Amino acid sequence: MSSRILIIGAGRSSSALIKYTLDKSEEFGWSITVADANPAAAAARIGGHPRGNAAWLDVTKTNDRRDLIGRADIVISLLPAHLHIEVAQDCIRLKKHLVTASYVSQELFRLGDEARDRELIFMGEMGLDPGIDHMTAMQRLNLIRKKGGKIIAFRSFTGGLIAPESNDNPWGYKFTWNPRNVVLAGQGTAQYLENEKLKFIPYQRLFKTLWHIEVPGYGKFEAYANRDSLLYRKQYGLDDIPTILRGTLRYPGFAAAWHALIRIGLTNADFPILDSAKITYHELMEALAPSGPGSVKDRIAQLLQIDPAGDVMNRLTWLGLFRKKKIKLRDATPALILENLLLDKWKLSPSDKDLIVMQHQIDYELDGKTYRDISNLTMKGEDATDTAMARLVGLPMGIFVRLISQGQIKATGVHIPTMKEVYEPVLEEMKSFGMELTHHTEEI
Amino acid sequence: MSSRILIIGAGRSSSALIKYTLDKSEEFGWSITVADANPAAAAARIGGHPRGNAAWLDVTKTNDRRDLIGRADIVISLLPAHLHIEVAQDCIRLKKHLVTASYVSQELFRLGDEARDRELIFMGEMGLDPGIDHMTAMQRLNLIRKKGGKIIAFRSFTGGLIAPESNDNPWGYKFTWNPRNVVLAGQGTAQYLENEKLKFIPYQRLFKTLWHIEVPGYGKFEAYANRDSLLYRKQYGLDDIPTILRGTLRYPGFAAAWHALIRIGLTNADFPILDSAKITYHELMEALAPSGPGSVKDRIAQLLQIDPAGDVMNRLTWLGLFRKKKIKLRDATPALILENLLLDKWKLSPSDKDLIVMQHQIDYELDGKTYRDISNLTMKGEDATDTAMARLVGLPMGIFVRLISQGQIKATGVHIPTMKEVYEPVLEEMKSFGMELTHHTEEI
Repeated sequence: MSSRILIIGAGRSSSALIKYTLDKSEEFGWSITVADANPAAAAARIGGHPRGNAAWLDVTKTNDRRDLIGRADIVISLLPAHLHIEVAQDCIRLKKHLVTASYVSQELFRLGDEARDRELIFMGEMGLDPGIDHMTAMQRLNLIRKKGGKIIAFRSFTGGLIAPESNDNPWGYKFTWNPRNVVLAGQGTAQYLENEKLKFIPYQRLFKTLWHIEVPGYGKFEAYANRDSLLYRKQYGLDDIPTILRGTLRYPGFAAAWHALIRIGLTNADFPILDSAKITYHELMEALAPSGPGSVKDRIAQLLQIDPAGDVMNRLTWLGLFRKKKIKLRDATPALILENLLLDKWKLSPSDKDLIVMQHQIDYELDGKTYRDISNLTMKGEDATDTAMARLVGLPMGIFVRLISQGQIKATGVHIPTMKEVYEPVLEEMKSFGMELTHHTEEI
Repeated sequence: MSSRILIIGAGRSSSALIKYTLDKSEEFGWSITVADANPAAAAARIGGHPRGNAAWLDVTKTNDRRDLIGRADIVISLLPAHLHIEVAQDCIRLKKHLVTASYVSQELFRLGDEARDRELIFMGEMGLDPGIDHMTAMQRLNLIRKKGGKIIAFRSFTGGLIAPESNDNPWGYKFTWNPRNVVLAGQGTAQYLENEKLKFIPYQRLFKTLWHIEVPGYGKFEAYANRDSLLYRKQYGLDDIPTILRGTLRYPGFAAAWHALIRIGLTNADFPILDSAKITYHELMEALAPSGPGSVKDRIAQLLQIDPAGDVMNRLTWLGLFRKKKIKLRDATPALILENLLLDKWKLSPSDKDLIVMQHQIDYELDGKTYRDISNLTMKGEDATDTAMARLVGLPMGIFVRLISQGQIKATGVHIPTMKEVYEPVLEEMKSFGMELTHHTEEI
């Protein structure tokens, strides 16, 4: 069975996926078309592979888009999330399967009946988070259910981090993903459930309300709550679960220092600083420090009620926040100034390896006892280009395309990867790409 | 000299102004037209006065608007700020003077040359704040300059409060102005200048960074910084002033309790609480409290590091935040829930008197000494309808209309009331309406 695969988008998150499809194209008889507004980028990803073609595509040009989609069997959209819907409508019209790594919008879910009628599968959230998190969670939840366990708590933590051997700055963090999202993370309010009680954590307390976990081989991590803990209860079959929490992992000490940045006001994105191009980081800190005697650093320490020679202050100082160096950004918000500073300080070196860590903790009752099922996923990248992040985002889509092209997918309609026919083979194959998955259970 | 005066808008802030113009209409030969989308409201304001006319006006209907403006000499716009510009353009075209109490937009300022060419005066910010604050400040600043003083600091504080005799709740506050603005006050970041240093106060520290003032006859007040302290430096002739601050006044203790509401997360307007219609205030507080043993109240006190039996907790409790009473608002944000609760708790009784307090502190050097010129403005309302707020917002526009109609205004173009020919007669006449203004100077 031959498949014509169209990948729309040749940006930085496409490398692992395109490489996978090209590598498997001979074995499975695939032809791969990579379409992008920048055809040179598409051609570079293909690298002259005999089964690959680069195509120029401006996705807003309906006829061009439909023409390309019409000549494919399976479409993978790596477009920004808001552009998926038009591709999805074309796929309905032209009867093509669709795969994305983005969150499935209500609008996309509403195409479910039409997709089912045409025996098509539209699979969204087929990346890391969302994606691998659904698959690993459902695998464990279904095993526990199968042996008769009653699930009473689900806690899930994920972090895109730096591998211990590349962890060489005081923050224990470098950017392996969208820096803006890291700087603005958590603005709003986290909501979760604990013992049937709804809990809210406003931003100003988010980074000091922490969970602590341990991952064999990697030691301790801390986590802060995500905004979306209450999502997926239905999809996971956990409608009435008393405790559910999703969180983001960091190395210990990160959250206390980030909380300091928040308290100082440096993650504030709602006002531009006039004359920000003319002032120094030191002057910015002076403006944010309480007035009074003593150095700016002392007054910031006093504001934060922290040791001026302690860990948090070391991290702030290391960023260069107290240096008399010009900011050189016009009318920038504090958040933009911070992002710009961190872009330099938290940049991956070419040989740096990233690390993805995920842990699910599932509490359940069985035969009068209470257990905690703990599953750990870890994956390290090779270097700053071939990252674990890119693999975990891209490879599940490639593997899913293989499953479709081999006729192994029975489901039709719009889905996220919570079904056994998807998660079992995807998780199995991911191991051959360096993803490690361990489980253990303890009585609690 | 007779004048035809058109007042656009008969809403709740129009009463004192309309009454003033009607009361003076016989003496000055004015005819008063009050136009509103609700002609019954306009007619009610006029109350059958022989020199008053009610008109129906949908301001978006260009021809109707121009027709009414064409038949007036002076236009007072009480429309929402964004609707002023079309009225202003009509006034240019039809050669009419214009008066408003709103902030003057850049767009409106750009009509300055055209207004000047046609010998028209467009006066904006002719209310309380902005308005009376400009006038009282400029009066003192110009007196100090005239005697040769060098101005080195300007601090200005204003509060819309409740009179001591009507102050009968633990918060020392009732709504005399837009409740939503009170609940969301200060979100963003306050900027001011202190000893030539730019200072920022992010929202999470705004209500605990306080200034303390005293007003003869009224005692002590506390103030938090406004967002706009750096405005008006040019208009006040204070371009190079080393210290400038504007703040909002409250009775002592308010800010600490409001800071508690912020820390709890109750002023958060960025996420709707699912199921907010079904839960109680107590459950909302449980959701925001840290987990652990003890009552919700104890855990909130612990979170805030306050005495569970102290003043701040008394204020929170008095609001009913710990009551097991349904919230009954669908998908409401915490800020909306709080606003709704306060609307009931902080409502003016019909006989309540409001109180406006304003204090300017102007530091200056003269003959080798440093002085502080302190001016205090206070005004009490009569009851919940005839408020000091309504008078101080409305009467300056009425008095200014009198000045125009008597030919006492030489200025043309777009202005705010910083000129002597405006502030001297307006402040003088305001005293006859119960506005008290005192001054004293002390060496510092």
